[in-house]
Amino acid sequence: MDSVWKNRLTLSLFGESHGPAVGMTLGGIPAGEAIDLDQLFVFLERRAPGRSSWSTSRREADVPEFLSGISNGKTNGGPIAALIRNQDARPADYEAIQEIPRPGHGDFTAHVKYGDHQPGGGHLSGRLTAALCIAGGICLQILDRRGICIGGHIASVVGVSDHLFDPVHVEAAQLSALAAMDFPVLNPEAGRRMIAVIEEAKAAGDSVGGVVECAVLGLPPGLGEPIFGGIENRISGLVFGIPAVKAVEFGAGFGAALMRGSEHNDPFYWSGDRVKARSNHHGGILGGITSGMPLLFRAAIKPTPSIGIRQESVGLTVRESVALEISGRHDPCIVPRAVPPVEAAAAIAICDACLEGNL
Amino acid sequence: MDSVWKNRLTLSLFGESHGPAVGMTLGGIPAGEAIDLDQLFVFLERRAPGRSSWSTSRREADVPEFLSGISNGKTNGGPIAALIRNQDARPADYEAIQEIPRPGHGDFTAHVKYGDHQPGGGHLSGRLTAALCIAGGICLQILDRRGICIGGHIASVVGVSDHLFDPVHVEAAQLSALAAMDFPVLNPEAGRRMIAVIEEAKAAGDSVGGVVECAVLGLPPGLGEPIFGGIENRISGLVFGIPAVKAVEFGAGFGAALMRGSEHNDPFYWSGDRVKARSNHHGGILGGITSGMPLLFRAAIKPTPSIGIRQESVGLTVRESVALEISGRHDPCIVPRAVPPVEAAAAIAICDACLEGNL
Amino acid sequence: MDSVWKNRLTLSLFGESHGPAVGMTLGGIPAGEAIDLDQLFVFLERRAPGRSSWSTSRREADVPEFLSGISNGKTNGGPIAALIRNQDARPADYEAIQEIPRPGHGDFTAHVKYGDHQPGGGHLSGRLTAALCIAGGICLQILDRRGICIGGHIASVVGVSDHLFDPVHVEAAQLSALAAMDFPVLNPEAGRRMIAVIEEAKAAGDSVGGVVECAVLGLPPGLGEPIFGGIENRISGLVFGIPAVKAVEFGAGFGAALMRGSEHNDPFYWSGDRVKARSNHHGGILGGITSGMPLLFRAAIKPTPSIGIRQESVGLTVRESVALEISGRHDPCIVPRAVPPVEAAAAIAICDACLEGNL
Amino acid sequence: MDSVWKNRLTLSLFGESHGPAVGMTLGGIPAGEAIDLDQLFVFLERRAPGRSSWSTSRREADVPEFLSGISNGKTNGGPIAALIRNQDARPADYEAIQEIPRPGHGDFTAHVKYGDHQPGGGHLSGRLTAALCIAGGICLQILDRRGICIGGHIASVVGVSDHLFDPVHVEAAQLSALAAMDFPVLNPEAGRRMIAVIEEAKAAGDSVGGVVECAVLGLPPGLGEPIFGGIENRISGLVFGIPAVKAVEFGAGFGAALMRGSEHNDPFYWSGDRVKARSNHHGGILGGITSGMPLLFRAAIKPTPSIGIRQESVGLTVRESVALEISGRHDPCIVPRAVPPVEAAAAIAICDACLEGNL
Repeated sequence: MDSVWKNRLTLSLFGESHGPAVGMTLGGIPAGEAIDLDQLFVFLERRAPGRSSWSTSRREADVPEFLSGISNGKTNGGPIAALIRNQDARPADYEAIQEIPRPGHGDFTAHVKYGDHQPGGGHLSGRLTAALCIAGGICLQILDRRGICIGGHIASVVGVSDHLFDPVHVEAAQLSALAAMDFPVLNPEAGRRMIAVIEEAKAAGDSVGGVVECAVLGLPPGLGEPIFGGIENRISGLVFGIPAVKAVEFGAGFGAALMRGSEHNDPFYWSGDRVKARSNHHGGILGGITSGMPLLFRAAIKPTPSIGIRQESVGLTVRESVALEISGRHDPCIVPRAVPPVEAAAAIAICDACLEGNL
Repeated sequence: MDSVWKNRLTLSLFGESHGPAVGMTLGGIPAGEAIDLDQLFVFLERRAPGRSSWSTSRREADVPEFLSGISNGKTNGGPIAALIRNQDARPADYEAIQEIPRPGHGDFTAHVKYGDHQPGGGHLSGRLTAALCIAGGICLQILDRRGICIGGHIASVVGVSDHLFDPVHVEAAQLSALAAMDFPVLNPEAGRRMIAVIEEAKAAGDSVGGVVECAVLGLPPGLGEPIFGGIENRISGLVFGIPAVKAVEFGAGFGAALMRGSEHNDPFYWSGDRVKARSNHHGGILGGITSGMPLLFRAAIKPTPSIGIRQESVGLTVRESVALEISGRHDPCIVPRAVPPVEAAAAIAICDACLEGNL
Repeated sequence: MDSVWKNRLTLSLFGESHGPAVGMTLGGIPAGEAIDLDQLFVFLERRAPGRSSWSTSRREADVPEFLSGISNGKTNGGPIAALIRNQDARPADYEAIQEIPRPGHGDFTAHVKYGDHQPGGGHLSGRLTAALCIAGGICLQILDRRGICIGGHIASVVGVSDHLFDPVHVEAAQLSALAAMDFPVLNPEAGRRMIAVIEEAKAAGDSVGGVVECAVLGLPPGLGEPIFGGIENRISGLVFGIPAVKAVEFGAGFGAALMRGSEHNDPFYWSGDRVKARSNHHGGILGGITSGMPLLFRAAIKPTPSIGIRQESVGLTVRESVALEISGRHDPCIVPRAVPPVEAAAAIAICDACLEGNL
Repeated sequence: MDSVWKNRLTLSLFGESHGPAVGMTLGGIPAGEAIDLDQLFVFLERRAPGRSSWSTSRREADVPEFLSGISNGKTNGGPIAALIRNQDARPADYEAIQEIPRPGHGDFTAHVKYGDHQPGGGHLSGRLTAALCIAGGICLQILDRRGICIGGHIASVVGVSDHLFDPVHVEAAQLSALAAMDFPVLNPEAGRRMIAVIEEAKAAGDSVGGVVECAVLGLPPGLGEPIFGGIENRISGLVFGIPAVKAVEFGAGFGAALMRGSEHNDPFYWSGDRVKARSNHHGGILGGITSGMPLLFRAAIKPTPSIGIRQESVGLTVRESVALEISGRHDPCIVPRAVPPVEAAAAIAICDACLEGNL
């Protein structure tokens, strides 16, 4: 295991949920890019736990310390390294889990693979997405300077659906507005109902899943590569690095499987000196390469595995059935806090493709 | 662009739809693995065009020539290289396309990226999946020897749905039976209706999309890695290398977004000396690592972009609107021929994880 | 084993000395680069066997067949694949070697690693440098168009030394002249003595080692990266891919170990609008990055292991001492034929760094 | 620039000489390997500055802080991250250098590449070898447990030569003895003369170069791969990551160029159930793969560029000649302190090959 994603950019994540820190090294960023740390902290804050009724009560300030790669507010061309200290780690909460794996969680598979050596929560933890967001937050600022903006919202929570982005007319102002929301949705009424559903699940000691939709605007055509270097390959390779993601779809996605070509094919037309498409079922990617239309994708987030409700599990050393009740602090719904990591994954993939395309 | 996928295995694809050949080099396969070329040809034959009413009338024998890596029927430890000559290439069919991009196809983005240099159909072609299938077919045999089998079926065509695999009880015999079918479905009645829909689309000069479902059985727990080295990351990184794929989901996938944790979490129990799960919403992967339950995923295949129906497009050199009618030989539905490439992608990813795990 | 070198460019080699072919896939070359195949053949011809008293009598036309990546004389942006058929393979010559490893050759280590599976000579053969030279020859043309030229000569053969390049004043015309020579040396008298020594060794059934010196001219400052991405790292990573190379030194190299800083440090001065150095002990590389001065390096080539003289070896299956006399066709001195592969390695590394630097 | 070396292991270095810290992330180490931190500190101490007349007077405790990957004294399977805080950084010493590049140093090329953004000394600094040594020290312990030991000595300083290792009979006890020495040499008399030469250079405000020789013992045959995956490729790829290294040779190295095959080829014989060689000109590597004989290589270390003697340089913003006199704290000879980084590079490369070979 190296937890490294490497293409034009190289991202290396490290850390454990209940160890001293999580962090990252990001290589390949050119020298001279201004990085506004306050703006980065605001982005990280959106992911940080402990700020609402729907998130874990674990509190982490999540202020990164930069160790290299940024001098006098600008990148210096060297690898950018940063860490976030874990302040509210409670390994004892996880001790039982070492012996009794949580259903739906990586406890069991980590035990098979790494034995007794990993600490509680270990490296297979949503906490690692804090490190992903440091890298993503840096990339977002670099992209912003190139006229590219990225933003997401909660598309659904257990079947309560927000409006989706208009695939052709989604605008940067919408993304900015979403970034300023505690609970980013396009339809406030849907948001209220989602929160109600989450609080109800919380009260029941349960959790709920949902979908994050993400848009990338301002992309020039021609970024990415065919076959294994496609934008879909890059984004999915990063998005599946977020522990709870179980599915990803681009443009019409699974909806494309229900269509005829005459319906799915997006007609081209000249708009001034640019070729545009009248519809956008292709989600801004054709042959793995950006078309210049908005890039749109959705990621399915499974319900948080750690729930209070009594569950059936097993003892790993004593071969027996165990009824598991988890008492730690957990998110009843990780979807709101998953929005920034999904944006981060997109930002890293797109920044990578921009550098490749010499943007 | 290098069209290389590299982890424990290294797969390098080359070739163009209307050039002399397509092919691949596969590195990392240990010495001494028997490869039955006849069995490999049977697998490639399942993908080859020209054998049914629902596929393109382009005929390609698709018999690979091996250049290295296999001696006396066994791998010799060196890179395995093979090529398939293009026999029925008709570059003239594609000449118009150079100037007028097909809606929904990579013609436009390839033009932006590579200019006038690429030949008709170029490297961004479904024909490259023939090379993917050589690699996949080799991996399938290596996995089979380790008790791991992989198989897929047509889960749906424009809304006509086959049964899905039983996530817990899917069996190897089912996969073998599917591999022997021209039109692999679990429910013959659904298959007949799908074929009817495809033929209807063909008659109309149209095309249709669909979904491929794939299962991997016999996996031990503990393969794969967390974060970016997860089985989901690997499979999606390869599956999105198949040109028409626009979405992928593992286990319950987007369905997980509709669930509560108490419903989604799969209870563990001891079955003899193995830990199993009573349900399989996790699709055999927890924390990026195999759990030992059947691995299940689905890929959405968009409708073939090349259709006979008149479409709106643009001239790329003369800035004008163009009504495009495509007269080449095209599949009205690529879904049946996409089953082997999806299996190939899974086989490469799993073989990679097996070698990593010293299986 | 994947025999892949991957950075900005990706080079994948395949083939076996006594299999059907050797070849390569080169990814990452941009579209639109003119490739003159005749010029490439001339380059390959310099490495090809069978044309002089000092090389093996094995004859191979070594004309590559291009399978993809070049259309109408220009790169098309896709991976470039090419192969060279083996015409004069004689596996029987190597059969004994499977059982009795040649001292100084990789036969023994390949046997330990791959067992009985590899064919005679296998993948660990100098013949693979033909594939390296296809990639290198392509890169040389791309570099030439950017004003960068690369050339080497035989710096010594068993102690008979040619003049070395003047580290500051070496000129492109010298490199062109060397490329046109059958036996490339700066000092014709030294060349004659070298040939005499080689012929003498051949007559004795023996072989001799030597040194190749290589220069890269016309480099701008600023190519390459520090630490593991340095030009030294890239060139050495490729040059040690040539089977007989056992050492590499840049600039003053091992001579730098004999110097004081006041002597070794090359003084900077302004020459018009460029910073130059009055001497060039650094060989054109400082901190892994090109300085704009000529890049100079030398590679030591060991004597060909295959000699006619009786040698002590062992049986690998029957545990016994064996007196080995090799009757195949072998080079008494590989050094002249190693010049193009060394140039090829440099060309690939430099082309890689140029693309990285957007040249 | 990512400063990442990636194969089976992935090593990512970060940090700047005059920034807050240097550090590393090492991925790919299996879970359950005991790491003795005291032993690691002893190894790092050998490289640390400020402890003798021949090293810089900059003092750094160089005690690493581990952030992840080690729990309860054992690796836990996750990436291992560690950092060393810079305590005695004096950026002001380097301010002039930003404007006036030191001859022989990467200041000039870093300026061309990164502009004014990098901090004094930057990422192109010997200080980064502290991070390399953390990784190397971990690998040394893992190798030791597998019966493989690595050790180096100062083979020469400006022409004053130590004895070389006996290529066939070098023993582990010798390596242990060297590791315990402040100034590791095989011949104490040569060591005394080297120290005298270094002190003389220091008094003159000058510096001197030298050679480090390194041995790896206890290797099984069969590690490494042919072509680009050879042990020479791996070691050189890492060793050239040490800023001052300008050359590397394996076994007889450049000496092989002076030999005939009948002299260079090392005769094989059976010694019990192992094949050994009577001599070891091949330095333990044949065809890129270990032979089981001692692995031997030498690296040339150039004289430290920072010297007190007045040198000719240039102003980079004002285009003028400048006489440069450097007043910072610098090593008159980096060779003694380069021994642990060279050992570290070898340890990482060999540990990588061991994991690949499932040792």
